[in-house]
Order: sequence, then structure tokens, then C-alpha cells
Amino acid sequence: MHLHTTMFLQSVSFQMTEEQHKKWLAAITNYTIIGTYAQTELGHGTHLRGMETTATYDTSTQEFVLHSPTLTSMKWWPGNLGKLVTHAIVAARLITRGKDYGIHLFMVQLRSMKDHSSLPGIELGDIGPKLGYSNVDNGFLRLEYVRIPRDQMCMKFSQVHPDGTYSAPPHSKLSYNSMVHIRSGLVKRVGIGLSKGATIATRYSAVRRQSELIPGRPEPLIMDYQSQQMKLFPQIATAYAFILTGFQLGQDFLSYIAEAKEGEFSALPELHSTSAGLKAFTTESTKGGLEVLRMSCGGHGFSSASAFPEIYGAFSPTCTFEGENTVMLLQTARFLMKSARQAMKGAKLTPFMSYLLLNQHERCRASKPDDFLDMDTLLLAYSHRARRMVTTSFRCIEADLKEGKNNGIAWNNNHLHLLAASTAHCHLFVVDSFNKAVEAIQCEDRTRRILRVLVQFYALDGILKNKGEFLESGYITVDQLDLVSKQFISLLAVIRPNAVALVDAFDLRDLKLGSVLGRYDGNVYENLYKWAKSAPLNKKDVADAYHLHLKPFLEENQRRVQSRL
Amino acid sequence: MHLHTTMFLQSVSFQMTEEQHKKWLAAITNYTIIGTYAQTELGHGTHLRGMETTATYDTSTQEFVLHSPTLTSMKWWPGNLGKLVTHAIVAARLITRGKDYGIHLFMVQLRSMKDHSSLPGIELGDIGPKLGYSNVDNGFLRLEYVRIPRDQMCMKFSQVHPDGTYSAPPHSKLSYNSMVHIRSGLVKRVGIGLSKGATIATRYSAVRRQSELIPGRPEPLIMDYQSQQMKLFPQIATAYAFILTGFQLGQDFLSYIAEAKEGEFSALPELHSTSAGLKAFTTESTKGGLEVLRMSCGGHGFSSASAFPEIYGAFSPTCTFEGENTVMLLQTARFLMKSARQAMKGAKLTPFMSYLLLNQHERCRASKPDDFLDMDTLLLAYSHRARRMVTTSFRCIEADLKEGKNNGIAWNNNHLHLLAASTAHCHLFVVDSFNKAVEAIQCEDRTRRILRVLVQFYALDGILKNKGEFLESGYITVDQLDLVSKQFISLLAVIRPNAVALVDAFDLRDLKLGSVLGRYDGNVYENLYKWAKSAPLNKKDVADAYHLHLKPFLEENQRRVQSRL
Repeated sequence: MHLHTTMFLQSVSFQMTEEQHKKWLAAITNYTIIGTYAQTELGHGTHLRGMETTATYDTSTQEFVLHSPTLTSMKWWPGNLGKLVTHAIVAARLITRGKDYGIHLFMVQLRSMKDHSSLPGIELGDIGPKLGYSNVDNGFLRLEYVRIPRDQMCMKFSQVHPDGTYSAPPHSKLSYNSMVHIRSGLVKRVGIGLSKGATIATRYSAVRRQSELIPGRPEPLIMDYQSQQMKLFPQIATAYAFILTGFQLGQDFLSYIAEAKEGEFSALPELHSTSAGLKAFTTESTKGGLEVLRMSCGGHGFSSASAFPEIYGAFSPTCTFEGENTVMLLQTARFLMKSARQAMKGAKLTPFMSYLLLNQHERCRASKPDDFLDMDTLLLAYSHRARRMVTTSFRCIEADLKEGKNNGIAWNNNHLHLLAASTAHCHLFVVDSFNKAVEAIQCEDRTRRILRVLVQFYALDGILKNKGEFLESGYITVDQLDLVSKQFISLLAVIRPNAVALVDAFDLRDLKLGSVLGRYDGNVYENLYKWAKSAPLNKKDVADAYHLHLKPFLEENQRRVQSRL
Repeated sequence: MHLHTTMFLQSVSFQMTEEQHKKWLAAITNYTIIGTYAQTELGHGTHLRGMETTATYDTSTQEFVLHSPTLTSMKWWPGNLGKLVTHAIVAARLITRGKDYGIHLFMVQLRSMKDHSSLPGIELGDIGPKLGYSNVDNGFLRLEYVRIPRDQMCMKFSQVHPDGTYSAPPHSKLSYNSMVHIRSGLVKRVGIGLSKGATIATRYSAVRRQSELIPGRPEPLIMDYQSQQMKLFPQIATAYAFILTGFQLGQDFLSYIAEAKEGEFSALPELHSTSAGLKAFTTESTKGGLEVLRMSCGGHGFSSASAFPEIYGAFSPTCTFEGENTVMLLQTARFLMKSARQAMKGAKLTPFMSYLLLNQHERCRASKPDDFLDMDTLLLAYSHRARRMVTTSFRCIEADLKEGKNNGIAWNNNHLHLLAASTAHCHLFVVDSFNKAVEAIQCEDRTRRILRVLVQFYALDGILKNKGEFLESGYITVDQLDLVSKQFISLLAVIRPNAVALVDAFDLRDLKLGSVLGRYDGNVYENLYKWAKSAPLNKKDVADAYHLHLKPFLEENQRRVQSRL
């Protein structure tokens, strides 16, 4: 019922008028109808303007005619669409009086309330097996001239009047609200997803013994190896960083909504661009991080007993859904290029974008590892990196335009730089938000001390993993990078005794984790054995397949050998 | 039967005497017994010396007693072990006359040839569901004082005589052969795995249209976006690189085997170290590459219709099996540190390792993008990077030792550097092998021309993705990196018209790919629809779950609403 209570309910709440609410809200909250949100088509997901489903207004009957004009226009992927739901909010191009007004939303009943059979003109089905989300029927929907009354278009912001005339929304950006809301919510969810993996891998690493450090001594805990710490600790820090950045984004969204109610929309462009980029940045980083954590458990990370296979399946679609990641980063890049142009012109920038005004000749003055614990230094390093990546993109595009290239071609010819610029921008945003959140949070001093270490560690780790770009910015030298490595290694030792407590603090109960490796009590091996013994194949010592296939096969081979003798 | 015909048969062939062959080989090749290879235990995989299963020789009966002394000593993960096989080659610590001689191999019958029931003292089972390899029963085996005759120890290289005395193998490295063989074989297999993903994603990108480049024009093929080319083309080049590097490793192994037969083992240390590192380097790179390719297909990459979910499941265990990747890279690092010490002393290095003798003050003289098409320049850049990473590791370890740290601690304290050094070394090896192979291959000139482009492109892509290390080496400047980017972007345009032909040349038939997205005929959308319609859930319009769950739920809600009115 997740999509019913989120996407479906929210679409109705946010996009319908009060009069429409009277007709639909009670049915939704009482669950007398079940709905979903159907936007993605077989041929298009993220590129909204490419959608093909049409809703053509028929003035004579005051109805919309919903239709899938091509194979690729079929709705494809919406959750619960194929088998479960009775209704859907369907995104379709509104056509009235011969003019195409682009994507609008329509309430469409799909199945009979009597026997759940699909209604005339409607073909529904499941799109087949896929990776993850296996408990959801991701469905398809093909519409053949399906008629709905005029008042089933979501009319809060734009209207089609009985005579077919169209009223545009007061602010075209209003339709962005739910996208921005969902994307900023995702950042926190992504952090929580990563915290699950970090908890499992860290707890198991505090139990598992491997190899030897000093010949003759007992096997050390695998968590005492630097290479293992390098896998675990950056992910613990990243989970904290994303959860706290998600909180901040949520706050930013709420203040924007309050402003928007007063007719003030100026915060939207940056919020929209930041939430798009962060959605991509955090999902990409987390997908990689979960893989590192899974593999840090050795072979057992592949067993369903670790819970990693399920976490991976449930998590990885986030990189393409709610806006494909490359497209999201390019959306952020558009805002960055606008800001770069404003900076060139000396126009006002938003406070966060003022990093574009930093002096490119500024140099880092760190001379010992400790200097890289200073958050001002670290933030300045990230700011210079972002400045360099943004200005490089801007200059490369300008150069292509001067050569006479078309705007779209110039943009496309610099995706390499634009993606790097967006990533650097988002990374700076996360380091900055994480730092601010840890300073603002109410907690004991000793708690803040270790949280500060995580902030520093997250920042240092990011420098080491992207050192080329930090060097390119000119702010940091090769010799200073050695200091960064040294400081990074020192912090590993500070985090080590706190690692288990830091993941316990995510407060994920055994029942929620569902992982034998990640058990709170650490009793891993005995429970792996118990878990395996309960596997379906182990009900019988001799599997049925033996009698069916193996026995005849072995006997036949035996006979053949004997006849040859 | 894959493990029967590979690991089981090979163990018997390579590790048993001719007399033992008489007893076992025919049964294996006639399939009158079915076997596997059981090494990994619940508590240990890669760390051989940590294995706990014992095989204690009993002089009185001239038998070995195989035993699992602890819970963690259970064999765990071997394929086909739980339900299918009748026999296994079991790795166990040999104990005779009170002394532990470490891991040796033993032939153990596990199940009755009459009714397949597990024999007394033997507990067998499946270890439960996991990611990938779902058609294989990965099993567990617990041994309780199981007796086998003396001649069931694999005795080709070491022997236990009737009185319990032990003869050591002539060369302790001999047991490395099959590991080296398997790992070098893996590199090519890994390349082929990547070629599957590259074929699917490239073909689909030649069909799929998205968004717009120039306003008002039709949607371009997604392959015409630079960001898409950045996803696809490096993976095409990498698949070629790994397949051809795998060939070379195979050749190196064969020449070593020929030398070893003459008693010449000097090539083993480098071959062993290279094959270990390359196993890690290529599997890690390919795992990441397959994910990039899957996501380059948008949402449809998650559908089983793409074949990516299956490819991912089948592929990803390679990063931990046959030697966990971090351990493998550290193994290579050991060889690199030895070489660095030799270089310091002025002792002779192997031809490949002579990059350690490069002058660290040498600077790249490229001044225009074209200069980075020169393979000597590119190889020198990779050599300097490897030199810098190896010498940095060496110096850091020496510094820790001088501070009085224990050798194992100093080593552990520099995993960060050691892993980077091994990776840089393996990367250089691949660029070098790929280049040599393309020059040596017999083909038409125009074929070699595009293959050369792939070599250059692979090398340029690697520089951009690791630019920090190339800058650190001092050989390349920030300004020259801009030339590398420019040249990289130019080659995208050269590869673009050849991309489909390059993946077609992998010669993977539709039946083998099993991917609707990767169909040779490009008829994707129609077949996605057909494929979905054949999904099990689509047999009926109204699913059984409706009658069972949804109908009563909806009706109950309806009643509740009505009673409230």
C-alpha cells in the first residue's frame, strides 16, 4: 500500500481542487479504492516532454479521451499498476481545442469495483521479473480511447473549462514541488539504506578473525586491518553525512513551501537543482558503498543470510528512478552554468554559490597533518575544487560556442566536465551540511567529539578519492596530499574503538536488519549454521532430483562402463 | 557438471599419482561418480593457513581420519557439495606422527552409491539462498571422524608413507600452479562477461531515443550523447583489453609450465603475483563496468528482460572467490615491495619491473592533444604512476620500520598505499598487454586501426579516472591533463560509428545473451511487450490474490464506510 498512501494520495492532495478532494480523498483514506501514480512509459521515463500518452478533450461530451497512440507510449514500470490497483493518476499530454499543453494528471479508473476485471479499452499486466522490488507488481497499461469526465483532470493549478479553453497555472514551477519533495526525502532514505549495510558489515567485522598480523599470534579481528577500516569507516561516515544532509534538505523544503504560500518562489531554482544533484550524488555513492560493504564480508556477503542481496535489490533502482542520475546531474549543471554566467557579469549569487567568487590563486597553507582537521581548510578545499570544475565547464562551453557550435551541441560536447562540476558541487554541499548539522545538534560533548571526527574523516576521504580534482584546483599541492593521507590514517585509529557504537547508534533492530552477519549479539557462525539448516533444500537428506535425474544418470553410466569391460 | 569437469577432475589429474589416476580418472570421465572440490570453510576462505579441518594419520589402520573440530571448520560454499556430489576432494590439515604439515588434499566419498544417502559421520546440506549462482547448490560438509584409506591422499607432490613419515614436495611452489592457472583463466572470462554487458547496452543505445539536443528536432539516439558514450565506450575498450590480457596471461602460464617441467621455476613469483593482482583488478573493474552498463539502459536495465540481473548475479562473486580481491592485491604488493628493495640495492629486476628504475624527474613533453595518441607517451605515464605508487609504499613502510614498528604492523599501517601500488601496477600491465596484443594480432589494416584507437582510448580513460595519481607522479601536469580530456573527447567521435560493429565482433548470439534489450535485430520495444505478456502473473487478468485478499479487504472497507453514513 506504500504507493497508495504516498504517490497516489499526494497527487490527489496536492494537484486536485477542494471540490475534487470531496469526491476522492475519503475513498483513498478509507481504502475503498486502491491507486497508484502512472507516469513512466515504455519509451520514456525521466524525459517528461517525451511522454506520448494523450488526453484529448471532447467538448461535445465534456470528457477527456485517454489514449496510448504508440507501442512506446504504454505506461510501463509504475508499481502495483498491473494487478493490484483499481485507479491511477495517469500523466498524459493534455490536448484541447487542437493544442498540446504538455503533461497533466488525470484520475482514471482501471478495474471494475465489482470483480476487479480491467475495464473496456484498458489493457493491464505485470512487466515481468526484475532485480529487486520483487514483492511489487510493476505494471503496464495500454489505453484505447478511454473516456473520463472533465472533472477527473487534476485542476488545482491548471484548468480545462467546459468549452475546452485552458487556464495555465499561476507559476509554472508549482508542478516541481512534489518532485523536489520526493528527491529531498530520498537523500535521508538513502543514508538509512547505507546505514543498514554499514551496521551489518561493521558488526560482522568485530566478530570475524582472519589471517595474521604478527607471525605466531592469534588471528586478529578483521576490523583491525587498515584495508578493512578503509572499507567500513568511510561508509559509516557517509551514512551519517547523508542522513543529516537529508534533514537539512527537508528543512529547506519546508521553508520554501512556507515562502511559496506567500507567493515567494525565489528559492526554488537552487532547491530544485540541489535536490536533483544530491539525489544522483547520494544514490550513486551509496550504491558503490553498499557493494564495498557487501564485499567486506567476504563470501558470506553473497549469502541471503547477510541481507545484502535483498538490500542491494531494493536499493539499486534508486539510481534510475525518480530521475535518472545522469540527467539529474545535468539538471544541476544547468543551474551551475547560470550561476557562472552571473558571476562573470558580477551579478548577485546565492550565498552557497559565492564559492565561484573565490580567488583562484589562493593556496592552502597546511603544513602538517593536523592542519587538515580544520573544517575551514577542508571546506575551502572543496569550494576551490567545485569552483575549478564549474569554471572549466563554463569556459569549455563558451569556447565551443565561439567556434560556432549550436548551444545544444556545445552542451553535449562537455558532458564530461559538466558531470564533474555537478558532482563536485554536491559533494561540497554534503560536507558543508554535515558539518553544520553536527555543530547544531543537541548532544553530549563526547558524542559531538566523535561526530566531528566523522565529519573530518568524510571530508578527508573525499579528497583522497578525488585527489586529481583537488590538485587541478591548484589549492592543494602533491606534498599536502601526503599530509591528507597521514591524517586520514590517523583518524582510522580514532574511529576504530567507536565503530561498533557508531553503527549501534543507527538503532536498527535485528528484526529490521534481517541479517545473520549483522546480529547485535555477534553470535554469527552458530546462527549461519542454523539458518542454513532451515533452508528448503535441506528438508530431506537426499533431494528429489536424485531419484528423478541423478540416479538414472549414474546407473546408465555404470551400465555403459560394465558393458565395455 | 562444471565443477566436476574442472576443479574435481583437475585436482585428481594434477595432484594424484599415476597409480591413483588408475583408481579414479575413469570413474570421473565416465560420470559414475560426481565430485567437487571442498576447500572454503565457514570461518575461512582465502586465508589457507587458517583452515581448520584435520586429516590425522592413524598408523595402526593406515587410514586418515578426517574431522571438523569446530563449528567454523565446516566446509561451506563449495558448489554442488550439499546435494549433488557423491565424492569430493577435501582440503584438510595433514597431521601425522603428531606434526601438522598444513593443507593437503584428500579424496572423500560423501554419499552412498546405492541410495545417495550421506555416509556415517558426514553431515551435508545446502547453505541457503544467495545472490547469483542460484542453480548451484553451494553446500556445507561437517565431518565427524571419517576414515579413508591412506591412498586417498593426493600424493603426487608430497606423500605419507605407511609408517606415517612424511615426504615434502620437491618445490613448495608447485601447489600454486592450479591457483595461477585458474586466476589467469579468470581474466579472459571476466573480459567476456563484460563484453556481454557492453553488447547489450551498446545495441540498446543504438535503438533508444531520448530527450533533445537541438530544440524542435526529433529525439536523438541516446548513443549520441557524450555522457552515454562515456558509459559505453570505456567498457567496450575494457572488454577488449581484458580478453586480450587474458590471452597473454594464458601464454605466460604455458611457457612457465614448459620451463617448470625442466625444473626452472624462476618465472613463478612474478606470474603468481601478476595473476593474483590482475584477478582483483579485472574483476573489480568489471563489476563496476557492468553496473554502469546496466544503468546506461535506464529503468529497463533492472528488468530481467535486459539479462543484466542474471549477469550481475553470476558475475559479482568473482570479486571474493578464488582469492578475495584485497588479499590478492596485497599479494601482488608483496612482490612489488621485494622488487623495490632489489631496485634500491641495484639488484637485477625482471624486465617488466624495470619501470622502478625510471628517472622520477622525467617530464612528459606532450603539448597538444594528439601527443597523447602516442603509446610510448601513454605507457610512460602509466609507468611513472606505478613507479611513484610503489616507491611511496616502500618509503612509508621503511619509515614505520625505522620508528620501531613491527614488520606486520608497518605493513598493515600502509594498506592504503600498497593497494594503490598494486592497482597501478596491474593497470600498467593491462595497457601494455593490450597494446602488444593489438600490434601482434593478425587482421586487416582497417581493423587494426580501430583496435589501436581502443588501446589509446582505454589508456586515456584510465588517466582521467585516476588523474590524481598521474599528477602525483610528476610526469603529467594539470595543463597536460586538459589535453588528455580533449583527446579523450575526440576519440569518442572516432569510436561512435564503430561502436555497434565493435560489440557485434564479440560474436555473442541472441540465444547466449538472452537479452531483449540486446537483440541483434534491435526490435526491442515490441519484444519487451511480448516478453512481459508471457510473464507468469499475466496468465489471468484478475490475479488469485484478488479473491483471496483484496476483495474481502475492499468489501470490508466499503461496509465500514456505509455503516458510518
